[in-house]
Amino acid sequence: MSLTPAPAPFTADDYRARMARATESAAAAGLSGLLVAPGPDLVYLTGYQPTAITERLTVLVLAAGQEPVLVVPKLEASDAEHAPGAAALTLRDWTDAVDPYALTAPLLAPSGNAGSPQRFGVSDNAWALHLLGLQQRLPETSFAALTEALPMLRAVKDEHELARLEAAGAAADEAYTEILKVRFAGRKETDVAADLAALLIKYGHSQVDFTVVGSGPNGANPHHEAGDRTIAHGDMVVLDFGGLKHGYGSDTTRSVHVGEPSADEQRVHDVVREAQRAGFEAVRPGAACQDVDRAARAVIEEAGYGEYFIHRTGHGIGVTTHEPPYMIEGEEQPLVPGMCFSIEPGIYLPGRFGVRIEDIVTVTEDGGRSFNNTAREMAVVE
Amino acid sequence: MSLTPAPAPFTADDYRARMARATESAAAAGLSGLLVAPGPDLVYLTGYQPTAITERLTVLVLAAGQEPVLVVPKLEASDAEHAPGAAALTLRDWTDAVDPYALTAPLLAPSGNAGSPQRFGVSDNAWALHLLGLQQRLPETSFAALTEALPMLRAVKDEHELARLEAAGAAADEAYTEILKVRFAGRKETDVAADLAALLIKYGHSQVDFTVVGSGPNGANPHHEAGDRTIAHGDMVVLDFGGLKHGYGSDTTRSVHVGEPSADEQRVHDVVREAQRAGFEAVRPGAACQDVDRAARAVIEEAGYGEYFIHRTGHGIGVTTHEPPYMIEGEEQPLVPGMCFSIEPGIYLPGRFGVRIEDIVTVTEDGGRSFNNTAREMAVVE
Repeated sequence: MSLTPAPAPFTADDYRARMARATESAAAAGLSGLLVAPGPDLVYLTGYQPTAITERLTVLVLAAGQEPVLVVPKLEASDAEHAPGAAALTLRDWTDAVDPYALTAPLLAPSGNAGSPQRFGVSDNAWALHLLGLQQRLPETSFAALTEALPMLRAVKDEHELARLEAAGAAADEAYTEILKVRFAGRKETDVAADLAALLIKYGHSQVDFTVVGSGPNGANPHHEAGDRTIAHGDMVVLDFGGLKHGYGSDTTRSVHVGEPSADEQRVHDVVREAQRAGFEAVRPGAACQDVDRAARAVIEEAGYGEYFIHRTGHGIGVTTHEPPYMIEGEEQPLVPGMCFSIEPGIYLPGRFGVRIEDIVTVTEDGGRSFNNTAREMAVVE
Repeated sequence: MSLTPAPAPFTADDYRARMARATESAAAAGLSGLLVAPGPDLVYLTGYQPTAITERLTVLVLAAGQEPVLVVPKLEASDAEHAPGAAALTLRDWTDAVDPYALTAPLLAPSGNAGSPQRFGVSDNAWALHLLGLQQRLPETSFAALTEALPMLRAVKDEHELARLEAAGAAADEAYTEILKVRFAGRKETDVAADLAALLIKYGHSQVDFTVVGSGPNGANPHHEAGDRTIAHGDMVVLDFGGLKHGYGSDTTRSVHVGEPSADEQRVHDVVREAQRAGFEAVRPGAACQDVDRAARAVIEEAGYGEYFIHRTGHGIGVTTHEPPYMIEGEEQPLVPGMCFSIEPGIYLPGRFGVRIEDIVTVTEDGGRSFNNTAREMAVVE
């Protein structure tokens, strides 16, 4: 099974360094600091994940020239004290009788900065409730979503993160190799999806995020998960699955066929495979994200299927399975070594079938390196 | 097990009526309309729950004089079309190449309203990313969190909802009755928590939200969940558990003792039980939420334990296990028949033990009615 040893946990020093880098990046992006909500940003910066996300304000305030402060409900303070990054920050707890926005606002307007305009980046998934609470108390301060203001906060992975992503990819590949041996024809999509979930866990995932099994016409809906449809001989089946292993994501797609494909199915699959390869070959430092999308899309358009490729080519991956950078037209962000993202073109023929092929790729000094390495040729299953 | 039949599903007409009531309530509260994000508000108003909550904008726009519109990513449109309330609204889908905020903004500023100031309520848990995207395109429009602007949106339950909450409470009571028979001493908190989760499922819950098992000193942390501590003879153990059954919540707490309690433990338990009873007796239409808190808190303060009751007395419950109204000092919202909430005072003695007793209660024309009805006396377990 999962023969690789668990990686060493991140330390408070790792988190201290990440918070310092984030604060510097924020300043370089013209921000006064960052407001980080529970979720992936907070996990990345502090290792802290509240047991539940509630209406009670929890927020990490990072601002130049001040120590990181984590505002937490008093009820959760003892949990927060045990977070891996707790030693690298100051906890400020509040009880239900206190207005948490009144408590937090001064942290955003340190004395000495009076008069200078403040602009804070906010985690995309911070609650509107909390943002509005702070906006009300700080009418002169402006706020920007981190995806807009500092989209690359978590995008460039260090070597420890790359090792985790590589291990997650290898585990997903093991799951794919093994799923090819199960019976498809006559079973429901949900049965195969359950097999995939069990395999991800078997190969070391702690969390399964998605197990798409899109058979026949269901494959033509790119966000179909898995349903009651019974898979039949002659079906194309899109398998797209992933989750978290040691806190980092996997996400791979292969499109398999139950029995021998028709010439038409083979052609569509060949086009998608060629598009996926073209996207991969466009990866190099300095290329724009949209170049990856364009390279993959051009192959599909030239083959006459352009209108059936109805989503972006890829998304970043890290402590979540979907995050910046996005491989999409209009995204001019240059690729930087250490960025990790999917390349996953597809063709979706409504009422008939879909094909998608997806690998997670990292940018290296001289191109791209794939964390998914199972055969991309269409596998024939039973 | 779960002998009650499943309730009839809500229909498109039910959702149409809820959306109409919500739009009216919004207008009465001085709002131009509501922006409803995926999560409990959207489930309540449309029955739609995206398979995953992503960075892609999904939002229901309710505004006076216009049909409800659900903005969804094109990838998720076919799922949204199958939502129970889909027939009561218009779907507007968008692809990755489109700016979803530019598409949504005009829905908030219908022609004819130009010039009049717009103010929209926003789901508490809407993402900051989406709120900021709309704020940028509608600088003249103001926004308010629904908890602030329309906190009672989901607070008053209709008879179908009350029946579901009652059934969820009865199921939680069954689980409590059965957990008293398991072995506590010598087992870990997590083992008993797993038993509780299995019992909630056994009695018809589809989702377990929390299974707190706080033994000995762990009980003194009111948001401790369950840990590796081995429960010992002589421990007080706080059991607080709940989840969703047929889409509506359960949440009950009892504090049990492994073997006979000390006189001190008994006294603390008696005080909490008396406080819980006092809170319940304060429930009647027209009383303020804070009156329930005050009634419970007064008992604990008079007994000299005031400083050890470190949270509010209660929270609403419905399609979530925590929502308005809150039973807390300063909340002057009058109680209305059909409101449902917890009454859960506690005393937490750091390093020693905690006691909490919690029922879900609904407001009736002439007082309160409890959905949890297991004995509130301290049970002795083995």
